[in-house]
Amino acid sequence: MSPCWMARIGVKTRIIEQRDRKITRGHADGVQCRTIEVFQSFGFAERFRKEANELSEVVFYNPDKDGKLVATSRIPDTEPNTSRFRHGVLNQGRIEDFLIDCMKEHSLTVERSISAVSLECREDPSEAHPITVKVDHLVPSDEAVDANGLYRSNILPDELFNSSISQRQVAKTEEIKTKYVVGCDGARSWTRKQLGFSLEGDSANIYWGVMDARPITDLPDIRVKVVLHSADSGSLLVVPRERNIVRFYIQLGTLQPGEKLDPSTQSVDKIIESARKIMAPYTLECPEVEWWSVYEIGQRLCKNVSFKNRIFLAGDAFHTHSPKGGQGMNFSMMDSYNLGWKLAACVKGTVAPTILDTYGGERVEVARQLLEFDRTIANLFSGKPSVAKSEGVSMAEFQALWVQMGKWTSGTAIQYEPSLIVAESSPAKTKLAKNVLIGSHFESQMVVCYADAHAVQLADRLVADGRWRLIVFAGNIGHANQLQRFRDLCSRLMNADESPIKKYTPSTADLNSFIEVLTLTSSRRHALSYSAFPELARPFVGNFRYPTYDQIFSDEVSYLDGGGEAYTGYGVDPDGPGCAVLVRPDQHIADVLGFDDCVEQLGRFFGGFMIH
Amino acid sequence: MSPCWMARIGVKTRIIEQRDRKITRGHADGVQCRTIEVFQSFGFAERFRKEANELSEVVFYNPDKDGKLVATSRIPDTEPNTSRFRHGVLNQGRIEDFLIDCMKEHSLTVERSISAVSLECREDPSEAHPITVKVDHLVPSDEAVDANGLYRSNILPDELFNSSISQRQVAKTEEIKTKYVVGCDGARSWTRKQLGFSLEGDSANIYWGVMDARPITDLPDIRVKVVLHSADSGSLLVVPRERNIVRFYIQLGTLQPGEKLDPSTQSVDKIIESARKIMAPYTLECPEVEWWSVYEIGQRLCKNVSFKNRIFLAGDAFHTHSPKGGQGMNFSMMDSYNLGWKLAACVKGTVAPTILDTYGGERVEVARQLLEFDRTIANLFSGKPSVAKSEGVSMAEFQALWVQMGKWTSGTAIQYEPSLIVAESSPAKTKLAKNVLIGSHFESQMVVCYADAHAVQLADRLVADGRWRLIVFAGNIGHANQLQRFRDLCSRLMNADESPIKKYTPSTADLNSFIEVLTLTSSRRHALSYSAFPELARPFVGNFRYPTYDQIFSDEVSYLDGGGEAYTGYGVDPDGPGCAVLVRPDQHIADVLGFDDCVEQLGRFFGGFMIH
Repeated sequence: MSPCWMARIGVKTRIIEQRDRKITRGHADGVQCRTIEVFQSFGFAERFRKEANELSEVVFYNPDKDGKLVATSRIPDTEPNTSRFRHGVLNQGRIEDFLIDCMKEHSLTVERSISAVSLECREDPSEAHPITVKVDHLVPSDEAVDANGLYRSNILPDELFNSSISQRQVAKTEEIKTKYVVGCDGARSWTRKQLGFSLEGDSANIYWGVMDARPITDLPDIRVKVVLHSADSGSLLVVPRERNIVRFYIQLGTLQPGEKLDPSTQSVDKIIESARKIMAPYTLECPEVEWWSVYEIGQRLCKNVSFKNRIFLAGDAFHTHSPKGGQGMNFSMMDSYNLGWKLAACVKGTVAPTILDTYGGERVEVARQLLEFDRTIANLFSGKPSVAKSEGVSMAEFQALWVQMGKWTSGTAIQYEPSLIVAESSPAKTKLAKNVLIGSHFESQMVVCYADAHAVQLADRLVADGRWRLIVFAGNIGHANQLQRFRDLCSRLMNADESPIKKYTPSTADLNSFIEVLTLTSSRRHALSYSAFPELARPFVGNFRYPTYDQIFSDEVSYLDGGGEAYTGYGVDPDGPGCAVLVRPDQHIADVLGFDDCVEQLGRFFGGFMIH
Repeated sequence: MSPCWMARIGVKTRIIEQRDRKITRGHADGVQCRTIEVFQSFGFAERFRKEANELSEVVFYNPDKDGKLVATSRIPDTEPNTSRFRHGVLNQGRIEDFLIDCMKEHSLTVERSISAVSLECREDPSEAHPITVKVDHLVPSDEAVDANGLYRSNILPDELFNSSISQRQVAKTEEIKTKYVVGCDGARSWTRKQLGFSLEGDSANIYWGVMDARPITDLPDIRVKVVLHSADSGSLLVVPRERNIVRFYIQLGTLQPGEKLDPSTQSVDKIIESARKIMAPYTLECPEVEWWSVYEIGQRLCKNVSFKNRIFLAGDAFHTHSPKGGQGMNFSMMDSYNLGWKLAACVKGTVAPTILDTYGGERVEVARQLLEFDRTIANLFSGKPSVAKSEGVSMAEFQALWVQMGKWTSGTAIQYEPSLIVAESSPAKTKLAKNVLIGSHFESQMVVCYADAHAVQLADRLVADGRWRLIVFAGNIGHANQLQRFRDLCSRLMNADESPIKKYTPSTADLNSFIEVLTLTSSRRHALSYSAFPELARPFVGNFRYPTYDQIFSDEVSYLDGGGEAYTGYGVDPDGPGCAVLVRPDQHIADVLGFDDCVEQLGRFFGGFMIH
């Protein structure tokens, strides 16, 4: 995600990766709603949706009072109104392709077979490129990286994990001077070790198998998600994948405290055998297994994620946990999505480096919540179910918690705390926009584009290009009084000296290049002729000063796609005084403002970190 | 479209094209709903939807009683329930890319710079490859094909039209022996001339300009479709395109009978000047014009489209008309869609060549309807509006006709007459499925997939792969009696000697390889466990005999996407005896059958043209 930001915003970047080629099978696969919203902001949500298997239903199989497995209930996998997108699964290799293609549009590529050797950061703050990274260019090997099931497994000791790299020949060495380094180098992060930081936390002493296979089974539900607790043989999770593949998570066994699992004793046959025991009396044959692995459950966190706001850790490099919540790849990408636009703005010199403090402030806190969530869900998964009245995990309790955690799991419940770039909430702000939560991402509603009558998801307009957005709820501009209020606001935003638009938009740049104003009226289209809108709402852009047609919307029912519920959805009074919502480049809500002091408040807010 | 069929079905094919490169600008752009449904059957509707501009609204501008232009009314561009897709516009070059990419997936490519010189078809019916086409391989030229606005215009005399080709050097010649030839070579079809066939019809002696430009205007509606009749200066049509481009159709003038327009007197400046007069008092500036042309309106048809069922004409080669109805490219592709699967089956030797008679039978008749439609709409467009009570075209009448023709324009109203491959309708059949019209395409309804709970458009399952489909409305199989009827039907389809599935499916092939059975129950999912369905409904396929999960559906409300209205939509009684709808490989409905004589009727139907 960070490189996508850099590519989009035009920041010179190098991505070095020690492995020769990308993985093609297995690994992470679940992509949560919020992550797909972010894919959409980079323009490739459609590619994901086309290839992924959307998950529609979750079925719980539990032992009945005789210990026989039965489907006890069915629920939707994505609760209504969670997002405009749905939870889906697709192998990590394809997700990486989408990211790589997104960067490639701006000529940024991944440089493979390069291994970092040393990392040094000078003290001198005046130095333009204070960091030196020495790297080895390795001779590419022919070895398929993911041939072995335990490749990258957390049960491998470090020396085995790194063996394929350490044995490779060095073709040449290079010294890279840079302003910033982001270590997205996984649970055994080399970057983290260089910084002397460490992951803290525990192993749960439980190990699971994971397998991608195309099964032949008489379990009637194999193309929906199945959470299956057997009476005595452990638990199993079925996640149907693209191409009729199924991802199985299979409980294998427990370890004594301090005991290490011997990788050489693990095999795909043992995993299938365990699955059969858990699923019995249902049958299971897997003629073709595409990928498998074994992992130990644990939750670990590194609370330091930045060194002098110059070197950063993201993803598994600072948080690890079990995979069944489908959070790992998602959370890691969201770290990077949070960091990328901030770093790019620092490199561009438009903001003070202090905003980089908010990366750790925001992401370490949500990672802590993630580990808490993971601990709970992992315990419930590995626990023995209480059959009838005997001891164990109550399946009703498990299912209730599952549903309750749905919003959190989807990634849409993340809310950042007040900071330099998240304003404090207040009752007055809440009154203006009841359901717009400062610190949360801006949720989407279907609205109608004034100029072309298209029904559009408003959040689709929050493209990841580094711009801030001011979403102006103009209210009912069919009323002369409200229209005048809206015109006054636009005029002050465009002309007042304290307006950040006036202050920070370069004089040669388009009016919407720093903050893009999106207007949503509660009155119907044609309450005001398009040509009568203030210039700020429909700025003229480019050399020929072409008009824009995609910044004004009406909250009305579209011809074919619904709509007309946006003001209600956001909790804004359609006949009220209006308000403005400031949205960060990463779609998180920075502030909610009334028309009257909007310009002054914005001036103060941006004054806190912008460089004039 | 024909080559897409050939590529998909695996028929050895060559596509020869005399021009060096594909066009990139201008030409046809409107893509109708039914065409997008066909794109979907080849798997690229999404690509189209992503890039095209969907048209949402049509606004009519007419002179008021003082002759001043005003927006008199607004209607949706695509009427609700026309299709699951919407009318959109995208330049012809991109559509060609989609088709080319679709073929390329099966290694079929376009061979450019090859010009046909002679065409000969032997009499001997026993000859495997009775046709000889002599071709010249031309030396590629550097000339951009579409640099001049009048390139390919119908106002160019033949010698000018062909000049760029005739001047080119021949690198080598070749003789191609083939079973079939399809001439998709446009209004001045070389193939048609070789066959001695001619287009018959009239010119309307009216000429229009067409232009793709990014306009700067104060007309408030420039991003929706605008049909504008001025009081005295002629008419204009605005079609907003992708990338903020607008396609303008502009009435330029009339000709005396027999008069020819001098191409050298036409220019883009004259077109813009005419547009300004028609739009006045609204302003128009076009700093960048991407493409322009001038054309004469006329409707012409060639009633012969086949020579001995060996050589065929498709598209403009046998029908030409004015472009404003947005039909040209669509109708041409639909010709080819109709022909392709039939030709492929003949080459494969599974059907008798007599089914090729149905190509002309079906397409000449609908082309005749097209020309009738076009004559009406072109007259109304070019007519002078009646202002107040004076003479002229009534704008109310024009608009009423526009709306009424919406379904026809969308391409979804096409219905083929009874033939070898379209059964006669009857009151008994109508009673079984009131809204399933034999000869029409099978319309889509949202249904829920039994196995994975996905909401799916049933017609999305009608993939263009050459297979027939039998859509079995199984009814309420929660009732033991109806379940038994359904099981009996499946059993007879699978085992009875007269069943075409039994008779024509090769013994080594999958059970669904000739006719794929799609089952739709009116009872809810889980009225019957998935594993309890008859094998025919969920056949085991491939070497490993993997189960299929995408052939059984329920007419119920999905978790998130509606549904539950399919039986009502198709007019089938959910508690009735059930029925089966036979659908051709091109999605047209061949027959509607009751359960009781289904197998016998199918046997007779396929017996009429299948080769055992």
